Amino acid sequence: MARVSQEHLDARRAQILDGAARCFARNGFHATSMQDVLQEVGLSAGAVYRYFRGKDEIIVAIATEVVRSVSEGYAEAAALNPAPSPDELIGMVMRSVLGLQSPPNDTGARHHAHLVIQVWAETLRNRELADILRETFAEMRVHWVKVVEAYQKQGLMRDDVPAEHVARTMIALAQGFVAQAALLGEAPIEEIEGGLRALMSMHATG
Amino acid sequence: MARVSQEHLDARRAQILDGAARCFARNGFHATSMQDVLQEVGLSAGAVYRYFRGKDEIIVAIATEVVRSVSEGYAEAAALNPAPSPDELIGMVMRSVLGLQSPPNDTGARHHAHLVIQVWAETLRNRELADILRETFAEMRVHWVKVVEAYQKQGLMRDDVPAEHVARTMIALAQGFVAQAALLGEAPIEEIEGGLRALMSMHATG
Repeated sequence: MARVSQEHLDARRAQILDGAARCFARNGFHATSMQDVLQEVGLSAGAVYRYFRGKDEIIVAIATEVVRSVSEGYAEAAALNPAPSPDELIGMVMRSVLGLQSPPNDTGARHHAHLVIQVWAETLRNRELADILRETFAEMRVHWVKVVEAYQKQGLMRDDVPAEHVARTMIALAQGFVAQAALLGEAPIEEIEGGLRALMSMHATG
Repeated sequence: MARVSQEHLDARRAQILDGAARCFARNGFHATSMQDVLQEVGLSAGAVYRYFRGKDEIIVAIATEVVRSVSEGYAEAAALNPAPSPDELIGMVMRSVLGLQSPPNDTGARHHAHLVIQVWAETLRNRELADILRETFAEMRVHWVKVVEAYQKQGLMRDDVPAEHVARTMIALAQGFVAQAALLGEAPIEEIEGGLRALMSMHATG
């Protein structure tokens, strides 16, 4: 009997996660049953339970993927040399996180934003997820701190504010944008880019 | 027999909502049962069901209060004359939203941030909440558009970016900050204020 290849196992696992993610984006983690997931992916319980012991394992697997994809978006944007300006960086990360490179796909972006919000809510009750999220935030911040230090070294930005604080602020802006994409159902990245550009043009009064 | 006063009814209602909010902040909307709420507030089922038909009604009532309190924070900050700079405004709103005026109370702030995240997640499945949130976002934006227009009229900010986009960006920053307060368990408002101040000092390259 032929052994099942690793590729096959990986593809099957990805198929289950994709289907479950669609269910979760539609109805939320809690209102989705394993039965819903089985129906969505068109597999038997036996086939699915071979990969995941239950819904909670699927949630953690999806959450981990979502958080990693966001972190990779930050890492890619931060690795560019010379560093793009903050408004350009935010735009790059947002396009990468929401999978909006091209062609734009509003439904996919909204689904992804929904998943992020659900992962956040789930994180409040799940210590494993909370740890993953905290580590990933720390990683993202390290990347962006380097970018901010480059701005400061080049004299483009005042250097009496710790780079960690600026990095946190830029990450907050990206997080708030994802919240709006999920909650308002619209994701006009160019509005956030323009808005940040305008804030950057502000003449300090103090 | 003496009639129950309106004050008494209001106080009882607030007592139920406060207790339920504590349960929800600890365990989430879905993992909290009506039995948990009854135990937390120390009232009988009969007493509670007189005010709310069930958990869903309590969730909507709490979410409405949370969203209103956020909106009021924005409105107050936006009404100041002369308008504070964006970094000062963000700090004011954050302190107001997280109830951190004085004395600082980290547990209360984190609980409130947890509730906001849960309201967001719930909003994805509840059309009534989604409508409330959308209306409130539009209200907040109107307030902040006025502030931004004042910056632009006074020549403090470039005016080739629509004020709506700048307002959306400032709201996103506040939302992302609440997300961090909930997810990371820390709410250093002065870091976001400093971060925005540094971004405002950025020399535009394009």
